[in-house]
Amino acid sequence: GFAKLDTHRGIRQGMAEVIYGAGKTKEQILKIAQAMVEEREKTVLITRMSKEAAEYVGASLDLHYDDLSRTGIVGQIPKPDGVGKIVVATGGTSDMPVAEEAALTAQVYGNEVVRLYDVGVAGMHRLMDHIEDIMSARVIVAIAGMEGALASVIGGMADCPVIAVPTSVGYGANFGGLSALLSMLNSCASGISVVNIDNGFGAGYLASMINHLEGRKE
Amino acid sequence: GFAKLDTHRGIRQGMAEVIYGAGKTKEQILKIAQAMVEEREKTVLITRMSKEAAEYVGASLDLHYDDLSRTGIVGQIPKPDGVGKIVVATGGTSDMPVAEEAALTAQVYGNEVVRLYDVGVAGMHRLMDHIEDIMSARVIVAIAGMEGALASVIGGMADCPVIAVPTSVGYGANFGGLSALLSMLNSCASGISVVNIDNGFGAGYLASMINHLEGRKE
Amino acid sequence: GFAKLDTHRGIRQGMAEVIYGAGKTKEQILKIAQAMVEEREKTVLITRMSKEAAEYVGASLDLHYDDLSRTGIVGQIPKPDGVGKIVVATGGTSDMPVAEEAALTAQVYGNEVVRLYDVGVAGMHRLMDHIEDIMSARVIVAIAGMEGALASVIGGMADCPVIAVPTSVGYGANFGGLSALLSMLNSCASGISVVNIDNGFGAGYLASMINHLEGRKE
Amino acid sequence: GFAKLDTHRGIRQGMAEVIYGAGKTKEQILKIAQAMVEEREKTVLITRMSKEAAEYVGASLDLHYDDLSRTGIVGQIPKPDGVGKIVVATGGTSDMPVAEEAALTAQVYGNEVVRLYDVGVAGMHRLMDHIEDIMSARVIVAIAGMEGALASVIGGMADCPVIAVPTSVGYGANFGGLSALLSMLNSCASGISVVNIDNGFGAGYLASMINHLEGRKE
Amino acid sequence: GFAKLDTHRGIRQGMAEVIYGAGKTKEQILKIAQAMVEEREKTVLITRMSKEAAEYVGASLDLHYDDLSRTGIVGQIPKPDGVGKIVVATGGTSDMPVAEEAALTAQVYGNEVVRLYDVGVAGMHRLMDHIEDIMSARVIVAIAGMEGALASVIGGMADCPVIAVPTSVGYGANFGGLSALLSMLNSCASGISVVNIDNGFGAGYLASMINHLEGRKE
Amino acid sequence: GFAKLDTHRGIRQGMAEVIYGAGKTKEQILKIAQAMVEEREKTVLITRMSKEAAEYVGASLDLHYDDLSRTGIVGQIPKPDGVGKIVVATGGTSDMPVAEEAALTAQVYGNEVVRLYDVGVAGMHRLMDHIEDIMSARVIVAIAGMEGALASVIGGMADCPVIAVPTSVGYGANFGGLSALLSMLNSCASGISVVNIDNGFGAGYLASMINHLEGRKE
Amino acid sequence: GFAKLDTHRGIRQGMAEVIYGAGKTKEQILKIAQAMVEEREKTVLITRMSKEAAEYVGASLDLHYDDLSRTGIVGQIPKPDGVGKIVVATGGTSDMPVAEEAALTAQVYGNEVVRLYDVGVAGMHRLMDHIEDIMSARVIVAIAGMEGALASVIGGMADCPVIAVPTSVGYGANFGGLSALLSMLNSCASGISVVNIDNGFGAGYLASMINHLEGRKE
Amino acid sequence: GFAKLDTHRGIRQGMAEVIYGAGKTKEQILKIAQAMVEEREKTVLITRMSKEAAEYVGASLDLHYDDLSRTGIVGQIPKPDGVGKIVVATGGTSDMPVAEEAALTAQVYGNEVVRLYDVGVAGMHRLMDHIEDIMSARVIVAIAGMEGALASVIGGMADCPVIAVPTSVGYGANFGGLSALLSMLNSCASGISVVNIDNGFGAGYLASMINHLEGRKE
Ligand SMILES: Nc1ncnc2c1ncn2[C@@H]1O[C@H](COP(=O)(O)O)[C@@H](O)[C@H]1O
Ligand SMILES: Nc1ncnc2c1ncn2[C@@H]1O[C@H](COP(=O)(O)O)[C@@H](O)[C@H]1O
Ligand SMILES: Nc1ncnc2c1ncn2[C@@H]1O[C@H](COP(=O)(O)O)[C@@H](O)[C@H]1O
Ligand SMILES: Nc1ncnc2c1ncn2[C@@H]1O[C@H](COP(=O)(O)O)[C@@H](O)[C@H]1O
Ligand SMILES: [Mg+2]
Ligand SMILES: [Mg+2]
Ligand SMILES: [Mg+2]
Ligand SMILES: [Mg+2]
Ligand SMILES: [Mg+2]
Ligand SMILES: [Mg+2]
Ligand SMILES: [Mg+2]
Ligand SMILES: [Mg+2]
Repeated sequence: GFAKLDTHRGIRQGMAEVIYGAGKTKEQILKIAQAMVEEREKTVLITRMSKEAAEYVGASLDLHYDDLSRTGIVGQIPKPDGVGKIVVATGGTSDMPVAEEAALTAQVYGNEVVRLYDVGVAGMHRLMDHIEDIMSARVIVAIAGMEGALASVIGGMADCPVIAVPTSVGYGANFGGLSALLSMLNSCASGISVVNIDNGFGAGYLASMINHLEGRKE
Repeated sequence: GFAKLDTHRGIRQGMAEVIYGAGKTKEQILKIAQAMVEEREKTVLITRMSKEAAEYVGASLDLHYDDLSRTGIVGQIPKPDGVGKIVVATGGTSDMPVAEEAALTAQVYGNEVVRLYDVGVAGMHRLMDHIEDIMSARVIVAIAGMEGALASVIGGMADCPVIAVPTSVGYGANFGGLSALLSMLNSCASGISVVNIDNGFGAGYLASMINHLEGRKE
Repeated sequence: GFAKLDTHRGIRQGMAEVIYGAGKTKEQILKIAQAMVEEREKTVLITRMSKEAAEYVGASLDLHYDDLSRTGIVGQIPKPDGVGKIVVATGGTSDMPVAEEAALTAQVYGNEVVRLYDVGVAGMHRLMDHIEDIMSARVIVAIAGMEGALASVIGGMADCPVIAVPTSVGYGANFGGLSALLSMLNSCASGISVVNIDNGFGAGYLASMINHLEGRKE
Repeated sequence: GFAKLDTHRGIRQGMAEVIYGAGKTKEQILKIAQAMVEEREKTVLITRMSKEAAEYVGASLDLHYDDLSRTGIVGQIPKPDGVGKIVVATGGTSDMPVAEEAALTAQVYGNEVVRLYDVGVAGMHRLMDHIEDIMSARVIVAIAGMEGALASVIGGMADCPVIAVPTSVGYGANFGGLSALLSMLNSCASGISVVNIDNGFGAGYLASMINHLEGRKE
Repeated sequence: GFAKLDTHRGIRQGMAEVIYGAGKTKEQILKIAQAMVEEREKTVLITRMSKEAAEYVGASLDLHYDDLSRTGIVGQIPKPDGVGKIVVATGGTSDMPVAEEAALTAQVYGNEVVRLYDVGVAGMHRLMDHIEDIMSARVIVAIAGMEGALASVIGGMADCPVIAVPTSVGYGANFGGLSALLSMLNSCASGISVVNIDNGFGAGYLASMINHLEGRKE
Repeated sequence: GFAKLDTHRGIRQGMAEVIYGAGKTKEQILKIAQAMVEEREKTVLITRMSKEAAEYVGASLDLHYDDLSRTGIVGQIPKPDGVGKIVVATGGTSDMPVAEEAALTAQVYGNEVVRLYDVGVAGMHRLMDHIEDIMSARVIVAIAGMEGALASVIGGMADCPVIAVPTSVGYGANFGGLSALLSMLNSCASGISVVNIDNGFGAGYLASMINHLEGRKE
Repeated sequence: GFAKLDTHRGIRQGMAEVIYGAGKTKEQILKIAQAMVEEREKTVLITRMSKEAAEYVGASLDLHYDDLSRTGIVGQIPKPDGVGKIVVATGGTSDMPVAEEAALTAQVYGNEVVRLYDVGVAGMHRLMDHIEDIMSARVIVAIAGMEGALASVIGGMADCPVIAVPTSVGYGANFGGLSALLSMLNSCASGISVVNIDNGFGAGYLASMINHLEGRKE
Repeated sequence: GFAKLDTHRGIRQGMAEVIYGAGKTKEQILKIAQAMVEEREKTVLITRMSKEAAEYVGASLDLHYDDLSRTGIVGQIPKPDGVGKIVVATGGTSDMPVAEEAALTAQVYGNEVVRLYDVGVAGMHRLMDHIEDIMSARVIVAIAGMEGALASVIGGMADCPVIAVPTSVGYGANFGGLSALLSMLNSCASGISVVNIDNGFGAGYLASMINHLEGRKE
């Protein structure tokens, strides 16, 4: 039955729970977080959380809040138990809020994360300086706005799965992230897939899932 | 350097080479395929290949051609050497051409594939009949046109990575696959990422990549 | 003539009048509502009403105001006189403002409403827990943002008319509700039709109309 | 369980089965139709069927084929057993293929259908001539391309549910039916809902469902 | 040469000058208006003018300001000298700001204007009550948001030119006026043309131009 | 009543009737045209008529057929009885089919037409050579594809109403006429309105209507 | 290697560095600017800089701030050393913020700039008054919102490269600059290319690059 | 006056004339080409020319026809007289038709062209192999479909102007070249501008214009 599925998922995903903060009041967030904490003693990840909500929740719970990505974490970030490393790369500095949402998500779900920020194609030598990280990653999260070329360039270099995150960073004909989204969907490099615009959480969660896939059972 | 990368990729991706047949003449396809076959004795996968090209290439090379997906394979499909099974699921029967492109790609790259076709949400009991396959897959390719809901439903059940492929199947306000594409990008289930509309090859390739990720080296 | 039509409608739709509050000043709303109340002693439904307008109107009239959906009701909600029950279901909690606009509209027009909130496809067992409600509804209002899959899933289960309401809830490639709208229009389940994005009133009104259709006159 | 649902649906929807002909070969259509006919002695409705397929199927089965809407019917159209009448109205003569798909679908599912074709708003007196039909319908299917105004005009007159079907008829800025679709979704008349562009079947099916809703059980 | 053209235009258009207030500071508006007034003693029309700018300009010049349409007029509205009457009709009350921009523009350019507001298709009898005005107009400005059907309905009745103005009034799938715009462009009635969304000035100006066309010179 | 309106229109529009040929069979066109001819002895204009239909109709009726615009005329083009001249201008030679539809329509409705073809803004001196025609026109139809700038340039010169017709001529980012359509709707020149993409008939008809407006009745 | 490239660029582009101010805090901007100033004694250009940031930075550094375009310049504008003159032209006064961003960028990179503002096609004689400037420019930046016709008109006159900048100025169907963008991309004049909506910096930079191209080396 | 402009242009652009073949009959093309040849003895470039037209024209004139780009050249390609070299680069082999239109256009206008085809970002080492060409170009035409990243990568390396040409090559969410177009417009590299989708001619023409700009006159 479905209830069983749910338990199964609980076990598999380990010690973390997540609250999507957008559109919830600070009181709602606190109440949900408290219920989670009491019941299961897990780490609780809160995404899209306003500073105001963070202050309110922080008064009652042990909350670490990241201003940039507007992410809150109640409890300890667990020791990494994934198979390899997750690289989180961005094209520019303005993509960093989305990148931190991805990186913190991956950490909360038990992954070692290597951050490569501002390595976009207009200054590709910065990307080249980190080629070792890219070649040794188990999964890469490539985050870019504007023309979104970073995903294709990384995808052309690396042999591991690349999760592309278009961001809404830019102006004019980027139409709220559409330009990067279409660019990434049309990448001619193989091994790339795409999540929603600005969806750092989704990318970090999927990267963690892939990084926790175990090998053959012999 | 870059040349090294390329060799590396050759080794990692195993014994298969791919030719994207769209926009190539039958003569071009034959020539490229022959060069590949001679040089490295690999299996050669040819996607988006017309029947006419298949007949032309088949006269000179040992070609297996799949009408439905318009995919050609020169040489033997290798023994599966992936870690687990790849489930390829479709919402309807009209999505089968894209699904076969994905499934054959996965097979050519050395994967065991379980096909679950026509299990869309309008007849969800058919999906339920195969819940064991879904729960035991290592990676799932969820293919659907029209409203694209299949990806969300499967993503809500399964704990493994789900690669969603929107198809251009439908009419009216599906706008060539846009409805399924947007639907899949906006999925509220976690662990889902999306490739381009009708991109069966891309999904099969990425699924294979994930299915060949090895576990911890102890 | 047309005047006759109008009277007819008044009778058929029973005791309720509606004011669309968006773009009206609080003074305008009060004036219209007072005229309605005095003239015909009906229940008056005010949609898209700001809190400020509610306070202003509430000072002069007996107003019940619902914060969440920003709906005001002057006078009594009538006893349900519809044929069956209307189920109002949502994919997530963020769809609740639209859902309450639909539910209150249906109640004001004389219907018994069953609310099934947060039963989206990412946690489908919650939907399954309420299958009895779904199977016994006379008409269902299915409200969802993001990928809008709820309408298809409910439409695949139920045998009654399903009115789908896309919401603007989400971010990125949902483009203000477009993703859910297209998804619902392309549903491969039968018996589904769609109203405008966030149009809870329209769905509740139509559901009431269907629920008041009488049977054969023998 | 789900199997039960399916049987339930079979019973409720009466004696008709439907095959969506688009993208199916004539051999596939014949095979599916024969299986349906043998197993349950029902009427079989085949939509989006090519003339060629009709000739092929007609050689083996008792098929009535309608050229205009490309609809085939195997077996007898049943006696109407709905509660009232369904009006199918179109704005122009070019909308008739979609209208016939809707009308034949409604007939196959046991409804009496009144056809009001070419009554669009540019010649509204033609619509006025049939006001009795409109006022006495139990449900109306309003079909229009170009500016789609028919649905709003009918919706403003009638007190019954109106199912609007945008068609792809037109040129230039109608963008394959988008103009009529948006127009209908934005109708300021109440009691209107919309199905996909050119989806005559969906409208006819839903109209039948509404027309078979029974009254209060006393 | 071009200078001559300009003078010609000045003469032909009579006594009015126009300032497009959007994006101009109150100081800029005052300065331009003063220059116009001093030089030629004309009426000056200021569109898209903020209340704040109106107060500022009103302190120095004899300004009449219309709150609803945010239109200012310096100097006297001239006596009508057009050939016939201009009807300005709206679908709803929310279209009135655009309508007043059109009506005041027409008046400033010397036209008699008949206002028919809130005569949309959902309550068509209100339109019918004014059929005499419509049949005797020399040119009609039809203003509507949402589904924009008003233009088609009026175009189907009247024999004079109809200038359709889509408004951005509405929500959801009206996409800032796109639904009404496409609807009006696709009108199947003859004699209709369209101006930009919310462009009351453009419609009023063109209506005046048509209404000042003189007859045959014998 | 409505019937009266219709007669009124017949009288006012003079001696011409129109058949929209798109989507009609040659037999249908002949039948409608014959009925029109017999009943009222008018000129009959047939737009969007295939060559094949023209040959078929021409065998039975006195038909003049224009290949370029695919327009047929049964009967005599009447003597011009409009007040002034209508200028029909195009940006390029590829816009000529639409232009001829407009020009022939205007002629059939009794207008003198001046054709200015291929006077687009990339070679503006050609436009300047005809400035007399432009300054003395009573109404101008400005037809252009690609960037549609012609309408603005002409609108900036002329003092008469300009009816802009975007065409689908072009490629790439013209998106079937969208670029010219948006360009024309956003024209910063006054006195311009727009009809649907490629709608030569609509422009010619409206131009005729304006050109037949009589002056003051003294 | 890449580092070498970077130095090369530094030399070639001369003495200027640029900071894209959007999305950066005033503290970040100051810090980056100070680093640049100290290290290399260049002019620093800061685009998209808020007034608040300008005040903050101006307290520590010698900053010239332009309100209109929100551009800051630290240090001296260098003497022009380009080959010819750059003309920056705008259609209207509302395009001036974008134009000043372009013009100041060009000046900072060492160019003589001729400003031709408000010379749009609705008042083309103003453009004609400056034909000498246009004919003698080495490169022209043509900036326009709304219908964007200016680029085509200038492109049709001039023989030098024209860089078109669509602006988001306008309302309604200009959809944030889309109308001007499409118009400019579809220009039928030769020698025109386009940068992103509102991208004054990009146009000024490219114009400078072209204006610094040296002739043949003999 | 304008005529003078035209002559000026003739001189400046040298010995070539261009016919845009799309939508012209073979007879029309021959006639125009013959007129050009007779009158001025120039090279005539014919773009978008069908094979059939080429055969027809080739029977009367000395025509060189390029199958791939569907470009015809009557007369001799002149000796290059530009200042430097023009690099024409493509992402894939499928972009070659557009590239050859650009390259042949540039050659016809007197430029030395270096072709770098199939150097897209998915195999970036191929691009690296040609870095000398890129660094020494005077102007680069970067042509790519799908994600269009090539323009950004080249723009990040080179110091010369880059003209980006999006192509319609691809499928699914590339929407006829929209993905590459948006990507290129949003490039974060400086010195890039964009022409219309598939507009090889426009890019080649502009590149030639830039390459013929002479240096300082001392
Ligand atoms: N269906 C497909 N969709 C997208 N890319 C493909 C497809 N099939 C093959 N490819 C890609 O095309 C490349 C081969 O392209 P080509 O050199 O043109 O044959 C492969 O490396 C794949 O990455
Ligand atoms: N949320 C809503 N969405 C669409 N239409 C509405 C809504 N609320 C009220 N209406 C319609 O608005 C009409 C009242 O409009 P008004 O006269 O502006 O108050 C009612 O008859 C309804 O048809
Ligand atoms: N090219 C055209 N575009 C739009 N409407 C047209 C066109 N030609 C004819 N019509 C309209 O179509 C009506 C005739 O339609 P029908 O009865 O289908 O022949 C006329 O009254 C015109 O309003
Ligand atoms: N591929 C092309 N795309 C756009 N414009 C072109 C193309 N080829 C030629 N042209 C333009 O078309 C003009 C010739 O058009 P035409 O007079 O129709 O032959 C030339 O001056 C070019 O500006
Ligand atoms: Mg890769
Ligand atoms: Mg899952
Ligand atoms: Mg159902
Ligand atoms: Mg109604
Ligand atoms: Mg009319
Ligand atoms: Mg004018
Ligand atoms: Mg030029
Ligand atoms: Mg560069």
